[in-house]
Amino acid sequence: MFSFECDYLQGAHPKILEAFAATNLTIQPGYGNDCWSDSAKDKIRAAFDCPDHDVYFLTGGTQTNAVIIDSLLRPYEGVISAVTGHVNAHEAGAIEHTGHKVLTLPAHDGKLDAAEVAEYIRAFYADPTWPHMVKPGMVYISHPTEYGTLYTAEELAALSAVCKEYDIPLFLDGARLGYGLMSYDTDVTPALLARLCDVFYVGGTKVGALCGEAVVFRPGLMPVQFPTIVKQHGAMVAKGRLLGVQFDTLFTDGLYFDISRHAIDMAEKMKALFLRKGYTFFKATPTNQQFVLLDNEKLRELQPKVGFSIWEPADATHTVVRFATSWATTDEDLAMLEEIL
Amino acid sequence: MFSFECDYLQGAHPKILEAFAATNLTIQPGYGNDCWSDSAKDKIRAAFDCPDHDVYFLTGGTQTNAVIIDSLLRPYEGVISAVTGHVNAHEAGAIEHTGHKVLTLPAHDGKLDAAEVAEYIRAFYADPTWPHMVKPGMVYISHPTEYGTLYTAEELAALSAVCKEYDIPLFLDGARLGYGLMSYDTDVTPALLARLCDVFYVGGTKVGALCGEAVVFRPGLMPVQFPTIVKQHGAMVAKGRLLGVQFDTLFTDGLYFDISRHAIDMAEKMKALFLRKGYTFFKATPTNQQFVLLDNEKLRELQPKVGFSIWEPADATHTVVRFATSWATTDEDLAMLEEIL
Amino acid sequence: MFSFECDYLQGAHPKILEAFAATNLTIQPGYGNDCWSDSAKDKIRAAFDCPDHDVYFLTGGTQTNAVIIDSLLRPYEGVISAVTGHVNAHEAGAIEHTGHKVLTLPAHDGKLDAAEVAEYIRAFYADPTWPHMVKPGMVYISHPTEYGTLYTAEELAALSAVCKEYDIPLFLDGARLGYGLMSYDTDVTPALLARLCDVFYVGGTKVGALCGEAVVFRPGLMPVQFPTIVKQHGAMVAKGRLLGVQFDTLFTDGLYFDISRHAIDMAEKMKALFLRKGYTFFKATPTNQQFVLLDNEKLRELQPKVGFSIWEPADATHTVVRFATSWATTDEDLAMLEEIL
Amino acid sequence: MFSFECDYLQGAHPKILEAFAATNLTIQPGYGNDCWSDSAKDKIRAAFDCPDHDVYFLTGGTQTNAVIIDSLLRPYEGVISAVTGHVNAHEAGAIEHTGHKVLTLPAHDGKLDAAEVAEYIRAFYADPTWPHMVKPGMVYISHPTEYGTLYTAEELAALSAVCKEYDIPLFLDGARLGYGLMSYDTDVTPALLARLCDVFYVGGTKVGALCGEAVVFRPGLMPVQFPTIVKQHGAMVAKGRLLGVQFDTLFTDGLYFDISRHAIDMAEKMKALFLRKGYTFFKATPTNQQFVLLDNEKLRELQPKVGFSIWEPADATHTVVRFATSWATTDEDLAMLEEIL
Repeated sequence: MFSFECDYLQGAHPKILEAFAATNLTIQPGYGNDCWSDSAKDKIRAAFDCPDHDVYFLTGGTQTNAVIIDSLLRPYEGVISAVTGHVNAHEAGAIEHTGHKVLTLPAHDGKLDAAEVAEYIRAFYADPTWPHMVKPGMVYISHPTEYGTLYTAEELAALSAVCKEYDIPLFLDGARLGYGLMSYDTDVTPALLARLCDVFYVGGTKVGALCGEAVVFRPGLMPVQFPTIVKQHGAMVAKGRLLGVQFDTLFTDGLYFDISRHAIDMAEKMKALFLRKGYTFFKATPTNQQFVLLDNEKLRELQPKVGFSIWEPADATHTVVRFATSWATTDEDLAMLEEIL
Repeated sequence: MFSFECDYLQGAHPKILEAFAATNLTIQPGYGNDCWSDSAKDKIRAAFDCPDHDVYFLTGGTQTNAVIIDSLLRPYEGVISAVTGHVNAHEAGAIEHTGHKVLTLPAHDGKLDAAEVAEYIRAFYADPTWPHMVKPGMVYISHPTEYGTLYTAEELAALSAVCKEYDIPLFLDGARLGYGLMSYDTDVTPALLARLCDVFYVGGTKVGALCGEAVVFRPGLMPVQFPTIVKQHGAMVAKGRLLGVQFDTLFTDGLYFDISRHAIDMAEKMKALFLRKGYTFFKATPTNQQFVLLDNEKLRELQPKVGFSIWEPADATHTVVRFATSWATTDEDLAMLEEIL
Repeated sequence: MFSFECDYLQGAHPKILEAFAATNLTIQPGYGNDCWSDSAKDKIRAAFDCPDHDVYFLTGGTQTNAVIIDSLLRPYEGVISAVTGHVNAHEAGAIEHTGHKVLTLPAHDGKLDAAEVAEYIRAFYADPTWPHMVKPGMVYISHPTEYGTLYTAEELAALSAVCKEYDIPLFLDGARLGYGLMSYDTDVTPALLARLCDVFYVGGTKVGALCGEAVVFRPGLMPVQFPTIVKQHGAMVAKGRLLGVQFDTLFTDGLYFDISRHAIDMAEKMKALFLRKGYTFFKATPTNQQFVLLDNEKLRELQPKVGFSIWEPADATHTVVRFATSWATTDEDLAMLEEIL
Repeated sequence: MFSFECDYLQGAHPKILEAFAATNLTIQPGYGNDCWSDSAKDKIRAAFDCPDHDVYFLTGGTQTNAVIIDSLLRPYEGVISAVTGHVNAHEAGAIEHTGHKVLTLPAHDGKLDAAEVAEYIRAFYADPTWPHMVKPGMVYISHPTEYGTLYTAEELAALSAVCKEYDIPLFLDGARLGYGLMSYDTDVTPALLARLCDVFYVGGTKVGALCGEAVVFRPGLMPVQFPTIVKQHGAMVAKGRLLGVQFDTLFTDGLYFDISRHAIDMAEKMKALFLRKGYTFFKATPTNQQFVLLDNEKLRELQPKVGFSIWEPADATHTVVRFATSWATTDEDLAMLEEIL
């Protein structure tokens, strides 16, 4: 099979498998207290230039979103998200399952607008019927967004300023963070991101790991009882080495950023290829996901030849589809795609 | 370091790492729809002689307990457990976090007594104030228990009969199931267990996997929307191959049972060794965990030399400690232990 | 003070207080098993021509919405509501607190459109990624809506048909049901409503009671363990006579409908009065709430003289305000209002 | 019917009904912002000599327990209770429904022992596996207990000291508080109780009101967003006057204490009567509930003649039953009981 359907169709970067083998029989304590977890945390703090931040490893994206949101909100608080945000649209109600309302605002290319966020919170505090309303207690953004788009440094700073004004955390879902940071078209550096967000996570599952997300909290934000909260959510991994070894490998010698950059290089080549072949973009993005508009006849012609995702119907005769590259995409893959197109 | 502290101190059985390497670049769909998950399910059904059962893979023990209990109970129902049961004692309130009360009964060597369970349920139905009470909606047992003990076939059949009488599922937590089934002293076979329990799980994390538990439901019991429930609990793994490849390996050519038997062989040798050296057992068990009574001076002498778990104080001068073997314990380990003791 | 701010500014209809006095020392069992609760249930079944329906009394509107929705949905299901629906907008996240997502659709004069509901559910079932989505498990409507509007019999039948097609309950929030049924401009009768809805409630708090809502379920829908669910939600009243006596009084000799009709008569006179005085309606409704557009200077002039609700800003210089009548509004009140206007 | 079954078989004290009538048409805002709620709060603060405490009115006991516990605990915390505590035994899992575990300790005449509480908390903090355990975040006691017993001032002070040491609130469930404070055999005064407890409630439902419990928080403990929490639990009463008028009446001229003392006087007479008639007590208590041991033949003889509660079987031929007095018990009732016995 040959596919651009998503960025988690293959296993792990080979160096991760090598590290599993090399460390396999070493005896280490469980629950994240192993030496590789410690080392990985240090390397992540270094990569994001945030030496005093707390780092914690979890297994998957929805789990991470639910655990972070539930651990930082009080029960009567909700989280502000774009209507297209993953926590609102594609997590089977995992946030509401923890008792919190997702407070939706319009999406602009998948992004929240800082002015609209400020207005929403201002209106909440101005409303004399506030006891009847869900208190906005956090702002959630994804970067890259579900539509492959990116916040600019200015947009991020504006959101951060709103959050600081109302003393609520800004949480950045970085399930595909590597692909965002390595985009050709971004002014957001790792260090800036760590400075502007109160909590964010560095996605592993979609960037070369078998599983794993690294949560990074600004100093003082992670609850003392965070491990208990993790356990209570069924999210604590007994063999914490599973996550520690992977992130230690990804953050050794810049592997995480290198493989992310590779996916971006492949995506840019793929974009050029689609254009060359006369295809129309629904949305060409600066990251590893590209949204192409296909007429439905073409779609049916391509489906048996190459994997891609059906995104949504565009009109009666056209469909939006997604082609994604990853750390594992090769030049041969692109050559085959060119032939098919 | 050299340790008998628990059965999850090392990585995975080497064959699992080999399988990760061999399958790494094969493209397969996510969320458990990969070919290895399918194959592993078939092999587990064969091993437990239950061709029509449903199998589903989850990541860890507490997660599995919470997901199964929450998916099978109605919100107003609780789960009956021994007071020493893992769901009651060591899961940070993960069951209550899903809204369900754990209804505790006395533990007899870590086990529930079927007659006491029957009496409890009978009393619930006889109580005219039932709307004010939590309805018993499931019976939870662990096998081996938290104390390394095992239910006999007769005890299991008695519990099963009570559950059938009141039409509630019997759920068996098999976090260490391999070590139970391969005990020298059990009349419970895989097929019998599948016949008597309504739902059980085959523990991987503590029996040679990096992570993973295989849930097995009797036909018709698994909710149609089970994947949604899993997702909602943050328990769905995007790269389902992580679990599929591991269980496929463990259930190829009986590897799961072979390595479990190896741990039992090592445990029996260890038991003999403790006796030979004149140690007293708090509880010598038929599985891989042995509970030894140490006077506190001896305890302090041994601690720097070998890893083991502090279980609980016995009296002012003695402590119960646990030594556990695993799939990875070697004869050399036992020789070193002998020397130390 | 003199006020049209809302319909719960005064106590109970005097006949209710008389009934409290008359029954006060009679000994009756608690928890809704008293004779007045039984009698009230029969009278409500008669009034809505649904002799086999189940009736249950709860205390307030938000409580009733949360208990009904939580008792009829499975944990992974959500409830469809207009974005302006009370459960979405004004209940402090009480529905999400029980773990369920509110799935919002556009409001048309406060109402859901049956075709949009059908399309939403159809799309859910057509989506291959359904395990990642919240299953629509119920449709919630309010009647009158939060904007004082009413569904026609045809609109209600269309929603009912959609619900039947997908086998999910249609739930009608009747916090102000009397004012809806007694409107001059409705073709929805009590019997029709009971036939088209699967569950609805007859609001007492806003229609002459001190507190209380009567939930009516179609036969077979109320869970056997409903009292346990009520208790678990903290919603069971020890002295059930508090609710029984009130509803028994309200449904004796048509009192509920008479006082509702009175409020409608007063509302129609109030509408005429506003028109006569040259005021502009934001929305003139067929029920007891009227939405008037005031310029902000006028607003500040009226505020010290008469109570009304600030609804929302209309533009920089105008505000939408609400004037509500109730069972207790008198002709003298209207005369005073006329003078002030 | 003639009954000593419980203390909520009749309506409200007549002065409450008079107050409803007298205030009925007065226009006042909803949601607890009415003048009677304000006045009642002041009177309660005066009665308990705690001028700076916060007071909030809720509707019933289970609701109050769930709202207080859920509002003061963090999600990963549990509440310590005697195994016989109402929150553990008779609330249909309402506490677990909010996600919190009830951590049970042995009951001594229905009471917690301060030393056992201290030992439990000490052991939690000493346990290196604490992330896997539920953190004890509050101590719950009932006074009178479910067995009609009372804490002494010394016992209460000891519990308070333990709670202060570990910085967790001591919460006293006073569903029958009046009967406890007016006992002939107590050294706990209202002022002392307010000084030793961090939060407690003054029960109305079982002490002369139709419904209602008054929660009293020490200064600074009530969350700023408490009304939102109440709303989210479905516990906010739109016509707050329902509770305000009742508590204002009960705390005017000491009515609450007078009617409680009356019930105690009646209970002491009833105790003497049972002794005179040669009955055996299972537990004679200093409050309004008396537990009598009946042989089962006698039980069947009495049942058609007088109401009482079946408490629990004592042995094969005897049963524990409860006779309760209340504010409404009369000398005539006792005379009839004497005749029957």
